[in-house]
Amino acid sequence: MKALKNLEQIRKQDNESWLHPWESMADAGGANRTVVQRAEGIHVYDEKGNRLIDGPGGMWCMQIGYGRQEMADAIAQQIMQVPYMNPFSLTSEPSARLAARLAELAPGDLNHVFLTTGGSTAVDTALRFVHFYNNVKGRPNKKHIISRASAYHGSTYLCSLVTGKDRDRNWFDIGSPTVHFLPSVNPSRRPAGMSIEAFADEKVRDLEQKILELGAENVGAFIAEPIQSSGGVIVPPNGYLRRCWEICRKYDVLYISDEVVTGFGRLGHWFASKEVFGIEPDLITCAKGLTSGYLPLGACLISDRVFAEVSGSRARGATFGHGFTYSGHPVCSVAALKSIEIIEREGILGHVRELGPYFQARLQELRDIPIVFDVRGMGLVGCVECSVKSIAQDSLAFDSDLGARIDRHCHELGLMVRPIVNQCVFSPPLVITKQEIDQMVDALREGIVRTMHDIEQELGIPIA
Amino acid sequence: MKALKNLEQIRKQDNESWLHPWESMADAGGANRTVVQRAEGIHVYDEKGNRLIDGPGGMWCMQIGYGRQEMADAIAQQIMQVPYMNPFSLTSEPSARLAARLAELAPGDLNHVFLTTGGSTAVDTALRFVHFYNNVKGRPNKKHIISRASAYHGSTYLCSLVTGKDRDRNWFDIGSPTVHFLPSVNPSRRPAGMSIEAFADEKVRDLEQKILELGAENVGAFIAEPIQSSGGVIVPPNGYLRRCWEICRKYDVLYISDEVVTGFGRLGHWFASKEVFGIEPDLITCAKGLTSGYLPLGACLISDRVFAEVSGSRARGATFGHGFTYSGHPVCSVAALKSIEIIEREGILGHVRELGPYFQARLQELRDIPIVFDVRGMGLVGCVECSVKSIAQDSLAFDSDLGARIDRHCHELGLMVRPIVNQCVFSPPLVITKQEIDQMVDALREGIVRTMHDIEQELGIPIA
Repeated sequence: MKALKNLEQIRKQDNESWLHPWESMADAGGANRTVVQRAEGIHVYDEKGNRLIDGPGGMWCMQIGYGRQEMADAIAQQIMQVPYMNPFSLTSEPSARLAARLAELAPGDLNHVFLTTGGSTAVDTALRFVHFYNNVKGRPNKKHIISRASAYHGSTYLCSLVTGKDRDRNWFDIGSPTVHFLPSVNPSRRPAGMSIEAFADEKVRDLEQKILELGAENVGAFIAEPIQSSGGVIVPPNGYLRRCWEICRKYDVLYISDEVVTGFGRLGHWFASKEVFGIEPDLITCAKGLTSGYLPLGACLISDRVFAEVSGSRARGATFGHGFTYSGHPVCSVAALKSIEIIEREGILGHVRELGPYFQARLQELRDIPIVFDVRGMGLVGCVECSVKSIAQDSLAFDSDLGARIDRHCHELGLMVRPIVNQCVFSPPLVITKQEIDQMVDALREGIVRTMHDIEQELGIPIA
Repeated sequence: MKALKNLEQIRKQDNESWLHPWESMADAGGANRTVVQRAEGIHVYDEKGNRLIDGPGGMWCMQIGYGRQEMADAIAQQIMQVPYMNPFSLTSEPSARLAARLAELAPGDLNHVFLTTGGSTAVDTALRFVHFYNNVKGRPNKKHIISRASAYHGSTYLCSLVTGKDRDRNWFDIGSPTVHFLPSVNPSRRPAGMSIEAFADEKVRDLEQKILELGAENVGAFIAEPIQSSGGVIVPPNGYLRRCWEICRKYDVLYISDEVVTGFGRLGHWFASKEVFGIEPDLITCAKGLTSGYLPLGACLISDRVFAEVSGSRARGATFGHGFTYSGHPVCSVAALKSIEIIEREGILGHVRELGPYFQARLQELRDIPIVFDVRGMGLVGCVECSVKSIAQDSLAFDSDLGARIDRHCHELGLMVRPIVNQCVFSPPLVITKQEIDQMVDALREGIVRTMHDIEQELGIPIA
């Protein structure tokens, strides 16, 4: 009774006081969000005590899973020792150790680490570094940024300028004359009859042509997620990223690899850029899995090669006048060190490399469901895209809500889904077992089938 | 021996791997920053075991002081219960409770709380809300932002656009045709012979004239710190903020009160806008003292009046497509709730109201030192500005380094200072006692005097 009253109060407070990210303003105040009561391993428990597999792994971040006592202990200990120090003029052991550790884990010569509070501030930092870099180098016009359709790079203003998801651009001031978007690199959407190799050629050409059109002397950077994540888990064609990186080198364009989702084991490696895609970017941004979501932290890594050109004798007296009160927060740094330690000690990267193909194969089986339109992914990230367009005239109305409908069914089946329009996205905790993957995919199948039956009833016609 | 080796390693890691905020790029790799070893109450301990009073209170944030066991316990408990939940679709008890608590503590009808990861993301959110608000209201041109010289509003790109500190604008791309800066509001810099009342009139006129010059239909917001903090602790003349707020209301311009520094007790109240300056802003941004720096968190508060115009039936189908993975992080929310609880339970606001005048009076005594040029402040924030311009021809070279020189002497005297060019800034933990204020000001006096003697020796002439 008291618990129920408490729950009602939390819901009221949540509805009335907390303006959430991506709030639908027409419904503001009445969202009635699920209240997570506790979490353990790969499971979260809702306000009714239902246990749910956390399909999205928090928000692509919960690498080591929930309920890690040693994480709580390490954090509590740091809070009693040094809970904060001003990063402008001071340092602390965990912050310095973390910077060195990230330099060690990163590919190539990415040895300079700027610590931030999350992915958005990491990308904001990377893009501001491009401004700084070319100003110090005396090339003030070399500032144009090339991004891609369906890219998601975060939600500060500057991040939003390079984000290519149309839905996120409504109602905001997003246009910039110095940001340019290349067309979609989704192989599933290539023209009928075009080979994947020809598609890759075309996508690489898109980049080179854009650089030539703008003039290489005006292009500061190309920014790309190795796998476009909230854009719908779009895995680029083989060789595409490597060839884009070579083009960037050819035209002296900085390559920013946004590994906020792919970093820290999602694809079975600390970073995916080199190990999976064969590139050594000039800058890498990361966050999320960096602390397994336990505390907010992000980082922007910069290569020696690039750093050398604006430091020491080439600094021209410049100060990198950028940073945050919470840059390199010692407690958040401890969380990152602990998460990295656990990933290493438990062999989680190898586990993902082993389990990834199985997870992908199981997801592919869902293609036999008539409303499943596309299945894609890599490592422990996957997306199942659904559509009723083959059978419903008014398919758009159905499709826009399809992910949410599937999510509701799955919730009852013990699975939490991340619905993005008509897509169901998965990036479970990396500690998930083979058996739990089976549970997850079985629940998803049932959720999709039930949703399909609902629509059949509503339309009065069978789909299959 | 092991400790020493460990220290050497930390310093090497720090120098080589961590690119700090506001790093001087010529010296990158050789900064040799102080390594904070532990912290307790109002003190931090450096790598040699020296105990230092934390004059800047972390970075204007360490309200409740260091070493709070109940903070460590509350955080550890939350980590074991719900260390993370996706704030887009879920909620948690501490996040919802915090939002409601902030609405309760905030002045007027500022009842909608958007949670972020720090001050910069809070200000970025406020400014993006201005875009969103006027787009939804069908006034796409009403976007110009008015800020002020010496303003500091953070370090995302958008925050940097409205920051008026020249030093922070070098080497970055900062100019925006839609951002405008009013001249300095520092009463100490007013023309000789001008009364403070006449100066206030002029400053208020600056705002109204700028609105009229741009056209009120084009001006989205005015953003102002109640006290300009890293701009040098500039306390505006009496009545200035209130009259600016009235002008904003008159011309339908949103008033953003940036309380990142003044919030949570620095001036003896939860927020300073209404209690100290008599204004009810449309938006308030806060961070720092919100968690007493223990974990990263920020918030942007929005008034009912403004919120109502873009929500419910007036939402036009809009989604507030903005936010962060770490918006409303449950562990950071617990840290804020705990800090607020401690401030309340220990009567810290009353303590600051009582002690503030004493602190200010003691600081004013320093005016008798010949190189002390100005002393200003309010509550538990203060600034001592020094200059040797009356005696040294090449005063600029001396002055630019004066704060750092004083800081070095004070360090030996057991006090950490925040040097900003020729200014020494103080915002000690709010739990500081009267006796500790005496220790702090005494050490500062000695540090300034020693610095003055150094300069006398270097110049070969006595200053006083």
